[in-house]
Amino acid sequence: MMHITEFQALIHRTYHERDAKRGLETDMLWLMEEVGELAEAIRKRDRKGAEEEFADVLAWLVTAASISGIDIEKAALAKYGKGCPRCGSIPCSCPDHPAPKSWP
Amino acid sequence: MMHITEFQALIHRTYHERDAKRGLETDMLWLMEEVGELAEAIRKRDRKGAEEEFADVLAWLVTAASISGIDIEKAALAKYGKGCPRCGSIPCSCPDHPAPKSWP
Repeated sequence: MMHITEFQALIHRTYHERDAKRGLETDMLWLMEEVGELAEAIRKRDRKGAEEEFADVLAWLVTAASISGIDIEKAALAKYGKGCPRCGSIPCSCPDHPAPKSWP
Repeated sequence: MMHITEFQALIHRTYHERDAKRGLETDMLWLMEEVGELAEAIRKRDRKGAEEEFADVLAWLVTAASISGIDIEKAALAKYGKGCPRCGSIPCSCPDHPAPKSWP
């Protein structure tokens, strides 16, 4: 079991020197590349691949947070720790707005 | 402090019924929308906005994992728990491949 903060710290220890040198804009390209690979694994319903890509997206996400000087666990709990940030409840009781089936 | 698994469970409790009904493809659109908003906050060096968007991207990422039946903490630790999955060390000692400065 691992806290979100600990995973951010683990990735920081593993990669930070290189990541910081590369710069935040390039790190964001990596993040988007991994999101694309996750989309591919999901499209193909490739479970093993999806597990790897979820790990990669999370790793690049915490990397971008580290380079930005942001503790992602703190940010996530600040926004979602007490439930839905709009209605304040668990489960969310906001009105549903399903995606339209067709363009207007 | 919160384990990654606990955050995934919190978001599941808060939103799962609606997320599951919406379907994985539409959830992925939400994830990509949030990645775009994160990119905007980073481009503007908007710290408060970036904190919110890191939280949102993480929330949609764990949502997509839940809909896929994947424990993202388990997947992340399987891949990164012992350091860099390529060289196996912390810090990573893989050879550096910096981005080229220009197109060929």
